[in-house]
Amino acid sequence: MSELHFIDLKECILSDNRNEAVLIRGELAEKHVFLWNIMSSPGAGKTTFITAFIRKMKPKLRIGVIEGDVESQVDAEIIKAENVPVVQLRTGGDCHLDSAMIRAGLNSLDISNLDLVIIENIGNLICPAEFDLGAHLQSMILSVPEGDDKAIKYPLMFSVCEAILISKVDYLPLSDFNIPRLIENVRKLNSAASIFPLSAKTGEGMGEFCSWLVKRMKFTA
Amino acid sequence: MSELHFIDLKECILSDNRNEAVLIRGELAEKHVFLWNIMSSPGAGKTTFITAFIRKMKPKLRIGVIEGDVESQVDAEIIKAENVPVVQLRTGGDCHLDSAMIRAGLNSLDISNLDLVIIENIGNLICPAEFDLGAHLQSMILSVPEGDDKAIKYPLMFSVCEAILISKVDYLPLSDFNIPRLIENVRKLNSAASIFPLSAKTGEGMGEFCSWLVKRMKFTA
Repeated sequence: MSELHFIDLKECILSDNRNEAVLIRGELAEKHVFLWNIMSSPGAGKTTFITAFIRKMKPKLRIGVIEGDVESQVDAEIIKAENVPVVQLRTGGDCHLDSAMIRAGLNSLDISNLDLVIIENIGNLICPAEFDLGAHLQSMILSVPEGDDKAIKYPLMFSVCEAILISKVDYLPLSDFNIPRLIENVRKLNSAASIFPLSAKTGEGMGEFCSWLVKRMKFTA
Repeated sequence: MSELHFIDLKECILSDNRNEAVLIRGELAEKHVFLWNIMSSPGAGKTTFITAFIRKMKPKLRIGVIEGDVESQVDAEIIKAENVPVVQLRTGGDCHLDSAMIRAGLNSLDISNLDLVIIENIGNLICPAEFDLGAHLQSMILSVPEGDDKAIKYPLMFSVCEAILISKVDYLPLSDFNIPRLIENVRKLNSAASIFPLSAKTGEGMGEFCSWLVKRMKFTA
């Protein structure tokens, strides 16, 4: 009797994705371009944060942005108004980006003129955590109004990130969000993550994060 | 030459899912049990809303809850404290519920003693919109801090919902969320949806929504 063959499609997809990611990471490191992946729920403030970051860091860094969305290009237009190169990836329904999409995005940016490429991932706390995009830094934004229990409920996302940004701290007076409780929950999954409370709106905490990022970029390049 | 056969796996999955959903919807209608699917981003306030809803409506309706999560059972424990039957569905990584999971959930609730079963879906604005769960009412919660641009960015979710709840209106004074702008964006996709601004925390708008729901349940049963 002939043997029954199983093909684990998900494992094939993730493995192809990882191979391409490893290539991207190496190629960009050789060219001294730092790739930074930012993930979050919808509406946690990725675009607002990236805009504030660009305004602060544009005098020091040549920044490009890969904008991921299921539909629309409203975020890409907001970033474009900051006069940095932007490319829009539209998945048309898919709930995450993958490394082949990032390759296409990088090919349409002139990376020889960039120090840093920021990926604004799809708004989703689940699937994006499974896909290595070749980034040198994995990060996520958790906004205060979402609540401090999210690390318990979306553990993979909080496990794979080296930097966790707690955004919208200007909402703290109206919220029962407890930063020490969030940190305690994160530490059970991820002892190494750096955690940054901040507000892109008021500017609170942005300086601390930017200083950390500049040091972190030197460490890779 | 033999013909090349294509199998669209996604279409197979969605079609099997739809068949089971149609059966669930019919069987529950016969038993006068109303099935209500609630979707949203992570942290939009589904559990807080459901808790407030149960406290308000428990004297009038026999309510059960199917709690969907990627991991953990913290929400199910919060709902259980309200003394209603709850079943926890844990997907272990999957980013949406499907109708087979709902069938399993219904089998473990004593539905002959219930008028209403609430499904708290996985926190995700993308994939859950594709999966018919057999519910009589499709709804979603958008919280004020997420921003009023979400209908543009997640159009399928806003298209498939009959009721759209704008939660956390107590955050409006700190936010630039514009309710008429949200409604205008929703109307481009969905002319029929009923839209309810409310706050589960202050109780604002809960009465209007509950009255609408009771009428809507009679219309199906």
